Amino acid sequence: MTTQTSPRAEFRARYLVESAVPSEKVAQVIAGEQSSGTFLSLPGETEQLKERSRARVVRIDPLPPMLEPTLASAHVARHGNPAVFHRAEIEIAFPIANVGANLSTLLATVAGNLFELGEVTALRLLDLDLPADYAAQFQGPAFGIEGTRRQAGVFERPLIGTIIKPSIGLTPQQTAELADDLCTAGIDFIKDDELIADPPYAPFDERLKAVMPVLRRHADRLGRMPMYAINISGSIDEMLRRHDAVLEAGGTCVMVSINWVGFAAVEHLRRHARLPIHGHRNGWGAFTRHPGLGFSFKAYQKLWRLAGVDQLHVNGLRSKFWEPDESVLDSARACLSDFAGLKPLMPVFSSGQWASQAPDMYRELRSSDLMHLAGGGIIGHPDGIAAGVNSMREGWEAAMQGVSLEAYARTHPALRRALAHFAGR
Amino acid sequence: MTTQTSPRAEFRARYLVESAVPSEKVAQVIAGEQSSGTFLSLPGETEQLKERSRARVVRIDPLPPMLEPTLASAHVARHGNPAVFHRAEIEIAFPIANVGANLSTLLATVAGNLFELGEVTALRLLDLDLPADYAAQFQGPAFGIEGTRRQAGVFERPLIGTIIKPSIGLTPQQTAELADDLCTAGIDFIKDDELIADPPYAPFDERLKAVMPVLRRHADRLGRMPMYAINISGSIDEMLRRHDAVLEAGGTCVMVSINWVGFAAVEHLRRHARLPIHGHRNGWGAFTRHPGLGFSFKAYQKLWRLAGVDQLHVNGLRSKFWEPDESVLDSARACLSDFAGLKPLMPVFSSGQWASQAPDMYRELRSSDLMHLAGGGIIGHPDGIAAGVNSMREGWEAAMQGVSLEAYARTHPALRRALAHFAGR
Repeated sequence: MTTQTSPRAEFRARYLVESAVPSEKVAQVIAGEQSSGTFLSLPGETEQLKERSRARVVRIDPLPPMLEPTLASAHVARHGNPAVFHRAEIEIAFPIANVGANLSTLLATVAGNLFELGEVTALRLLDLDLPADYAAQFQGPAFGIEGTRRQAGVFERPLIGTIIKPSIGLTPQQTAELADDLCTAGIDFIKDDELIADPPYAPFDERLKAVMPVLRRHADRLGRMPMYAINISGSIDEMLRRHDAVLEAGGTCVMVSINWVGFAAVEHLRRHARLPIHGHRNGWGAFTRHPGLGFSFKAYQKLWRLAGVDQLHVNGLRSKFWEPDESVLDSARACLSDFAGLKPLMPVFSSGQWASQAPDMYRELRSSDLMHLAGGGIIGHPDGIAAGVNSMREGWEAAMQGVSLEAYARTHPALRRALAHFAGR
Repeated sequence: MTTQTSPRAEFRARYLVESAVPSEKVAQVIAGEQSSGTFLSLPGETEQLKERSRARVVRIDPLPPMLEPTLASAHVARHGNPAVFHRAEIEIAFPIANVGANLSTLLATVAGNLFELGEVTALRLLDLDLPADYAAQFQGPAFGIEGTRRQAGVFERPLIGTIIKPSIGLTPQQTAELADDLCTAGIDFIKDDELIADPPYAPFDERLKAVMPVLRRHADRLGRMPMYAINISGSIDEMLRRHDAVLEAGGTCVMVSINWVGFAAVEHLRRHARLPIHGHRNGWGAFTRHPGLGFSFKAYQKLWRLAGVDQLHVNGLRSKFWEPDESVLDSARACLSDFAGLKPLMPVFSSGQWASQAPDMYRELRSSDLMHLAGGGIIGHPDGIAAGVNSMREGWEAAMQGVSLEAYARTHPALRRALAHFAGR
């Protein structure tokens, strides 16, 4: 018996789940726990309420079971270990009316207590699917790829960039000198390290004040201003004030440590901002490194896209990080993909990068809508920073023209020196 | 050669780390990566800068090595698997001057990219230590245990509470009716489910408007107002506005999903708030369930204490969640412990709770500075909600008097019925 006349509007979440009970059962437990269910039949919980409110198991794709639990559960141990632990990919549909346009409650629904359920011995949020009219109720990226390119004045090739290093310790004046060298070298994009925001030895305001005149000077020369993703992470008031100071000084980007300022802060900044938001995902490893726990990047980037980030880190091919190259490419593809009518994100590649990765990136992505950041690959080039930037750009020219790096290097000395110097390192 | 004349002020982080390289080496890599280090020697990176800025490895306590990596690393695979993976607890000291009073940068420093380092095959933040004068630069809890008790008018025993159920689907009027029943039964504390904040069928304002007159009416009768942790999670503006509406209506608490609104939002709310902040940690499982990744609760509660949460969830003994009882007790002990001069947090026990857990909790903690929340254990009591509340309170009386539940039950019918009804479920 139901009074519903039209289908409920729903959003969907897909999980990898492993459990001590059959997958059909654990899917029902999760759907119940994350909507109207509980372990007792309650007075107010009528059939009508359930019909309106309960989540629905859409799909269960069984996977081979395990003989041992992937993650320990005292609850399972207390109730006696089963012979096998069931595994499946499951999809659950939640009524949009349970949540509304509320990002933290969306998270509490798709990524809340369910990670802790006693029956569950592995659970990972694999993907999310929102109808476009629901997604449109969130902020979404204001700039995305097109807006970032417009701000940077760089089109039809990747933004070649670097990170201010050493991460910690440079005075504002030293930072400005380094920025000057980078701009002289023709860099497209510079970012602060995530470790520096407003330390006593290089306060935000002084860093901004030292660097911006350098950028403006080079903008006059270059006809475009190198984009500086200055790290504004801090309190809500500080971030808004810093954004305004950057805007006032003619800057074109702001950066935040998204995981640690959090969703509500990024949404708030997005509402206020007139500049693209560079999303630094430091800490992300804790959310994703175990394949049976946490978040896939595919889901993660959708959540941050809802919040309004424009640029998002994805590591790099053959980086110094743990991540396999295929996973890095999948992350970039996710950023570049359509999602519920929201603007795509510009993926940011970094760590251990130099010209060599360009052909692989372009072959796999067929896109130059990305940032390619190199530290040593630019600053450590044997012929200096300008040659470092040129070698990166030449690597991409070769990649996009379908010419091998070696062939292109014959007529491009910066790339040639990079190949000789960095290969095999 | 150093120009330092006095010891640097530092904070410290302790980790479990497993790596493909010896622990001494990985500790140096982490210290370098998270302060002034990089993979190249850089022009501006003078000895003076390093001396001022670099993190310092304080201690390495070796643990037995592993033959297989706990977490996969493509970086390790690319460089050839070592014979063993080294494990240790390490402690690193960071200059306070690297960070300043900036919570997101503190997180980026102690819990940032280091989770993703290629050499690392397990990494968990175990603990944090901040000097009191540094911690004092953060908000910290405004209320803590004492302030929460004052607001609730409950002293020298735990706050007995419950969660509005079903989690989803009740109208504001139905919520108010349930609150009325709970207050009639003498409850100390009621909280919203984390799944409900401001859905179309029960908008925040209407829920508040429906429930508050009920609470005020009972306050007149009881001489104390039952504390209602109403879920204000949402955008920054919504949370401030909702806090003000709660305050205006005479409410005594607000609740937020801390992981999903985020640190900057909780700090901002704390600065503004005149009410205790009930910290709901839904999603926490994703941060902690793998023992070789993420965060220990000990570190986690310190970070949220810095942000200014007053009450924090710790699961419950013999709960429906995965967590072993000893871990739950350790979490409660962490909340109750001194940390850098900040107020202790009130731990919130819930899930599968009824009177039976009281003696174990009191024996282990020797404290009643906690919230003990029961759903079915109160609402499902065979003699009704009032008997449910009484049975919980009687359980605590027995525990604090050192009398067994069975003995106390002889003269306390609500507890007697609870024992007969719930035991063995």
